[in-house]
Amino acid sequence: MTYCVGLLLTKGMVLLSDTRTNAGLDNISTYRKMFLFEDPGERVIAIMTAGSLSVTQTAIARLRAAMKDPEATPDTSILQAQSMLKVAEIAGNTLAAVRRDIDEKLAVMRQSASATMIVAGQVRRGDMRMFLIYPEGNFIEATEDTPFLQIGEHKYGKPILDRVVRPETDLMDAQKAVLLSMDSTLRSNLSVGMPLDLCVIERDACRVGLRRRIEAGDADFRAMSEAWSNALREGFQRITN
Amino acid sequence: MTYCVGLLLTKGMVLLSDTRTNAGLDNISTYRKMFLFEDPGERVIAIMTAGSLSVTQTAIARLRAAMKDPEATPDTSILQAQSMLKVAEIAGNTLAAVRRDIDEKLAVMRQSASATMIVAGQVRRGDMRMFLIYPEGNFIEATEDTPFLQIGEHKYGKPILDRVVRPETDLMDAQKAVLLSMDSTLRSNLSVGMPLDLCVIERDACRVGLRRRIEAGDADFRAMSEAWSNALREGFQRITN
Repeated sequence: MTYCVGLLLTKGMVLLSDTRTNAGLDNISTYRKMFLFEDPGERVIAIMTAGSLSVTQTAIARLRAAMKDPEATPDTSILQAQSMLKVAEIAGNTLAAVRRDIDEKLAVMRQSASATMIVAGQVRRGDMRMFLIYPEGNFIEATEDTPFLQIGEHKYGKPILDRVVRPETDLMDAQKAVLLSMDSTLRSNLSVGMPLDLCVIERDACRVGLRRRIEAGDADFRAMSEAWSNALREGFQRITN
Repeated sequence: MTYCVGLLLTKGMVLLSDTRTNAGLDNISTYRKMFLFEDPGERVIAIMTAGSLSVTQTAIARLRAAMKDPEATPDTSILQAQSMLKVAEIAGNTLAAVRRDIDEKLAVMRQSASATMIVAGQVRRGDMRMFLIYPEGNFIEATEDTPFLQIGEHKYGKPILDRVVRPETDLMDAQKAVLLSMDSTLRSNLSVGMPLDLCVIERDACRVGLRRRIEAGDADFRAMSEAWSNALREGFQRITN
């Protein structure tokens, strides 16, 4: 399982992913699920992945191969695409093609594999945008009404986002919100695990503003998690029924 | 969908269920999912149900028919069973039999139906116990380590329970905890809906201590929900990152 969350705010975007990958409960590994591509000042693209590792790794590998292809065009490379909408289309088509290929291989075993992505970023002179890409390659987009997108194990961490995230939330509070959302998920689903990858991209910067790996045992993360537990318990005690 | 939660505490038990039943998003109805059976001072049994309405209604109907059967025995009627373990076995066998019958009917359409139950209560001179019954009739039991059980849409409402419910939690706080757990679920899943059924059973009373239907628009419930939202937002603001 996986939990990835992205917030699209007035001041920029904040993305957070876990790194746990498992094939059964007895085969657990750490794999990066957040991939950053930038041409600083010109474009910045973040991709987060959830689902079958064979699908997500192959999809990211094909996106990279297309960037390096000497015959790459704005229709094939996300580093040349002229808008974030085009980036989402390229990523969606790549994901859908990989999924079809792998599904064909798995059909003999009556199995199937699937994956989803969050694709977000900004191309200079374009809007900052964030998309959730479905396994079939179609996508939806974060808006002012719903300024966040989640993939993977999204339920445990949603109540906090619903309550505190607004488009005008500042980027410090936004980091706190995604970390607490992840904290609730980590507590409830063993297949979501540390370390975490955090990324902040300011609007119109077209570059990664902050990139941080939060390791298991990170003192700041633990302090925030404990403060939140205490705040919940105190809040609970103060309510009268 | 459904959300039902039961807490088994040192001082007694608290149960809460929603009442929304839907066949698709365009066919929504209200059905009771909490059923109370008592022989005051002798035994009290609460059953909550989740899953296919045709399975849960038929299972409850068969349990009732078995109670009224003039040839009922402690092996067939939950009102005569000599322990809560036996009550759980009767309920489990009934649920599994109904599920098999309905599955046979649905097989022609390549469909299937399923349901789960929480069965809780106390028989005089026995322990207060709470079971979660699976569709196949087997069950697990709440313990000191995990003093609550949930069926249906359990994820949104679990973080609050994990943080505040302990075996020694008093029955007032326990009611607050299940109501806030339900509140988080109601906000996130449209197929869980008001009104709610709340029940409190004190240990060794062998009778229902409190039974309350909370209607949509209930002023107390709304006030508690708003106070919790405010407590979460204030707690969030106080945390430094």
